[in-house]
Amino acid sequence: MAHIDLGMDETEFPGITGPLRFRPETGKPLGELAEVLLRGPHSLTPGERELIAAYVSGLNDCKFCCASHSAFAAAQLDGGAAVVDEVRADVDSAPISAKLRALLHIAGAVQVDGRKVSTEMIEGARAEGATDVEIHDTVLIAAAFCMYNRYVDGLGTFAPDSPEQYAKSAQRIIESGYRF
Amino acid sequence: MAHIDLGMDETEFPGITGPLRFRPETGKPLGELAEVLLRGPHSLTPGERELIAAYVSGLNDCKFCCASHSAFAAAQLDGGAAVVDEVRADVDSAPISAKLRALLHIAGAVQVDGRKVSTEMIEGARAEGATDVEIHDTVLIAAAFCMYNRYVDGLGTFAPDSPEQYAKSAQRIIESGYRF
Repeated sequence: MAHIDLGMDETEFPGITGPLRFRPETGKPLGELAEVLLRGPHSLTPGERELIAAYVSGLNDCKFCCASHSAFAAAQLDGGAAVVDEVRADVDSAPISAKLRALLHIAGAVQVDGRKVSTEMIEGARAEGATDVEIHDTVLIAAAFCMYNRYVDGLGTFAPDSPEQYAKSAQRIIESGYRF
Repeated sequence: MAHIDLGMDETEFPGITGPLRFRPETGKPLGELAEVLLRGPHSLTPGERELIAAYVSGLNDCKFCCASHSAFAAAQLDGGAAVVDEVRADVDSAPISAKLRALLHIAGAVQVDGRKVSTEMIEGARAEGATDVEIHDTVLIAAAFCMYNRYVDGLGTFAPDSPEQYAKSAQRIIESGYRF
């Protein structure tokens, strides 16, 4: 049970979905930020951006966010769940583009501390064709999931075990998005 | 110089102010979130909430955010900069209310990892009179500054040295707020 009384059935509103409804004043910008970062018009596909979110959530060991965004990435990436699993196991050997690999290295540094992002990492991403907006959004997706993960776990919210529930959420997100 | 070309003079738009303008689509929800969390109607004063932001930014060693929110807290708290310095040096001996101390302990746990927030910390805050909304917002302020700090530092933005510049920003925030 969550640390605070969310006023709803947590099995129906697991993870972040309960707190977003408990406090809609903050839920609105939190949903809008996820929508722009993960689904807005972009040169990186929604699947690629969800993969960055899943990767960072895995590094933060946030069960709900990692399972959710892994499912959302799997549903929208060529290669599906297998690619997500390979990235989470070893970014360097996973079957993804060199540009996405370089961006994931930047995201991994941000997860530890923003100051871990080096000029070499940025130059490496740029050498693989990454644009300023792609680098900016990678840093912000990684930073934002350091927030969402702490929000979900800091309130002690419920995370379902069933993979089917996350797959169902993936369909809802793909159809309706994150706006709240 | 920032890792990406923000297209503006960084001494004029230091820290987060450059990236917010570089990408207004994300700047808007980021500004709205800060406005609701730090300045919206609340049982905690803006000064108390800025103090939580300054404390977490200090733990994350984010020069720009820590100097900014320390100045914003100092300008709005009884006791001014001395209280901010004492909290940053030692939460347990600082001259603040027992409730705010308990909330700062929760914020400090969130900074490390959301899962570090214990039932005992929540019960401690509740015993000092903290409400569910106060606990929720403390968790989210701490989580949000784990994002803002990583965003600012992950992009390698410029942070001024001059305390006068942060004091000037404090007046601007108090007058105009965070909405972008």
